[in-house]
Amino acid sequence: MQFADRLKNVETSAIRELFKLLGKPGIISFAGGFPDPALFDAEGIAQASQAVLTHNPGPVLQYGATEGYQPLREGISTFMEGKGSSVRPEGLIVTTGSQQALDLIGKTMISPGDKVIVEAPTFLATIQCFRLYGAHIIGAPIDADGVDVDKLEALIEEHKPKLVYLIPTFGNPSGATLSLARRQRILEIAVRTQTLVVEDDPYGELYFDQAPPPSLLALSDGVPGSRDWLAHCGSFSKILSPGLRVGWLVAPPALLANATMCKQFSDAHTSNLTQAICAHYLTMNRLDATLAVVRRTYAERARVMAESLRRELGDAIAFNQPRGGMFFWARLTGANGKGSHAPDFAKRAIDQGVAFVPGAPFFAHDPDLSTLRLSFATADVAKIEEGIGRLAQAL
Amino acid sequence: MQFADRLKNVETSAIRELFKLLGKPGIISFAGGFPDPALFDAEGIAQASQAVLTHNPGPVLQYGATEGYQPLREGISTFMEGKGSSVRPEGLIVTTGSQQALDLIGKTMISPGDKVIVEAPTFLATIQCFRLYGAHIIGAPIDADGVDVDKLEALIEEHKPKLVYLIPTFGNPSGATLSLARRQRILEIAVRTQTLVVEDDPYGELYFDQAPPPSLLALSDGVPGSRDWLAHCGSFSKILSPGLRVGWLVAPPALLANATMCKQFSDAHTSNLTQAICAHYLTMNRLDATLAVVRRTYAERARVMAESLRRELGDAIAFNQPRGGMFFWARLTGANGKGSHAPDFAKRAIDQGVAFVPGAPFFAHDPDLSTLRLSFATADVAKIEEGIGRLAQAL
Repeated sequence: MQFADRLKNVETSAIRELFKLLGKPGIISFAGGFPDPALFDAEGIAQASQAVLTHNPGPVLQYGATEGYQPLREGISTFMEGKGSSVRPEGLIVTTGSQQALDLIGKTMISPGDKVIVEAPTFLATIQCFRLYGAHIIGAPIDADGVDVDKLEALIEEHKPKLVYLIPTFGNPSGATLSLARRQRILEIAVRTQTLVVEDDPYGELYFDQAPPPSLLALSDGVPGSRDWLAHCGSFSKILSPGLRVGWLVAPPALLANATMCKQFSDAHTSNLTQAICAHYLTMNRLDATLAVVRRTYAERARVMAESLRRELGDAIAFNQPRGGMFFWARLTGANGKGSHAPDFAKRAIDQGVAFVPGAPFFAHDPDLSTLRLSFATADVAKIEEGIGRLAQAL
Repeated sequence: MQFADRLKNVETSAIRELFKLLGKPGIISFAGGFPDPALFDAEGIAQASQAVLTHNPGPVLQYGATEGYQPLREGISTFMEGKGSSVRPEGLIVTTGSQQALDLIGKTMISPGDKVIVEAPTFLATIQCFRLYGAHIIGAPIDADGVDVDKLEALIEEHKPKLVYLIPTFGNPSGATLSLARRQRILEIAVRTQTLVVEDDPYGELYFDQAPPPSLLALSDGVPGSRDWLAHCGSFSKILSPGLRVGWLVAPPALLANATMCKQFSDAHTSNLTQAICAHYLTMNRLDATLAVVRRTYAERARVMAESLRRELGDAIAFNQPRGGMFFWARLTGANGKGSHAPDFAKRAIDQGVAFVPGAPFFAHDPDLSTLRLSFATADVAKIEEGIGRLAQAL
């Protein structure tokens, strides 16, 4: 059987191979990007489900509009207003998780050979998703304050990309947060160069002490013309439940209309039941309390992971302390300062009963082999201390 | 903003324009392809939802495997066995409705310029879905017994298509059912010409008096080698609820692995909650009773629609009586036997307060403008009689 040419653009992920090893009994995993299921408000979700399935269940079980279940579009609009972003219900569509928002952006925007700029490193599934549409991916360097805007601007001028994809807040895998000044500049560059910027924002609510800078979307009202060049992906996966598969896409009208047309032939619409559950949940006044627990829990875990890393690995590892999200991005400094080989280290770590993801696959090209990603979201404090201890032994 | 070239392959649907008119008050619609929501087993679904959200809800609300929720893969395997098809749980993946199964087949198989053969007429969303991947679609003629196999074979020899897409049982829009002899021959042709055949089977359970011939999938065990060239799409949309968005794809191992990889970057996985609800529902022994009501109801509506059409429109309309499914496919004979113009008739019908879909958009090319599709699934018997009366007035 001869498959489509586009499959040749995607390699089998190195991470996939690693994940196969995670089944080993007793392993402590910092490898996944999963929220802690103990923090899900299962009781609230069950109540919401019962409510929408007993009162007028017909529309919830019937086919629905490709754009999304109207009460949820309205609920998301209100939720976004609360975060300082003005988005009308008609200015967004509901997607089957924010992964589908990325897929629809790829399908709508990218012709084979088109260039796309992403952070180096960035979310692995974005790289692969866009490559399936034939994108040539170019990485822009980052530091603790997010993408280097001077270099990004130069890359835009040089490559005239179809779009720039960023995770400005608590990036995956970087943990970095783009500074307010850089956010402002990126919007200005988008307008000046007429370049679509895609803001992926699944983690923005997961801050520890203080809220991050406003999203590009929230800031766009202050930068004339920037809304015409900005798309924004949101998700309930990290704040409510990933198993529901409900996300959303905010975009300029023509892009949104084309993405809706593409979605019609991708999955017709997102499950009305899970959409109705999210819509009802938003009216239950439980989200703030749920998020407060998640923030407190992840903040404590991040603090313990940082302390443990410094105590147990000392100078052998370098990292920036994240202010939210789910990830530490670290670098093995190595004896000579040139960096040790993280993939080899990952194998030794598995032998010691602890797992993480080497950083290489998060780079579209020129991977830094000394990097690695550690998630502090899933394991509790005791496991984090024990796991980092095992990491020290593996080193 | 410059969009992807693939969007140029898809026109805005003529149906979409018509659907805008359906909001007119008091209209009786035979236009949709929606099941009757009064027949949904909302109580059973609510019970299933409560069960999966109260007993160990963690895995249901967490990220899940791209291949699908394992208890549902097992449930579908057992369900398919009951219909005479041997499919192991590992031989299928769960999709976000069967529309996504079509999308994944397109993404996995079709390179721009590849040829695909479909029935003329066929499901509109399949044509558009495959065109978005650059397919050149070729229609094969059908009659009351489904696709004309001699002509299909000749088209395969001539065009060497990437795949052949068929709705063998109670086709949409044709209502036709492929005969057993033709099914057998198609499997033999697939093996001989090494051509992938995609069997879309959303309607097979909606039979009136007697079960239709076994699916191509069920028959494939008797045709050596045919399983290697057969994919099969199933769905809970017509038998349980479309709002859940749960379908499945059975395919040879290499195709299934590639489709799974594509799905990972399309939506990561289908909602675990709706998957778990379907899995639990299958264990509740309610499906047979639910289906019995659906079959009885649709059979009665189809009978009344046929009688009304004959009584009210007489020789002005020709159609084959379907033995299941949701659709009548009809032809306006016209005064001279050459056929009247169905799109014009559709506009006059709307003025009289009744809607249907003209047949033209269901043809990939060379549309028969005298054809139309009438759904008997959504309106009750009284509305069907009244609606067909209005149709006669419009004529």
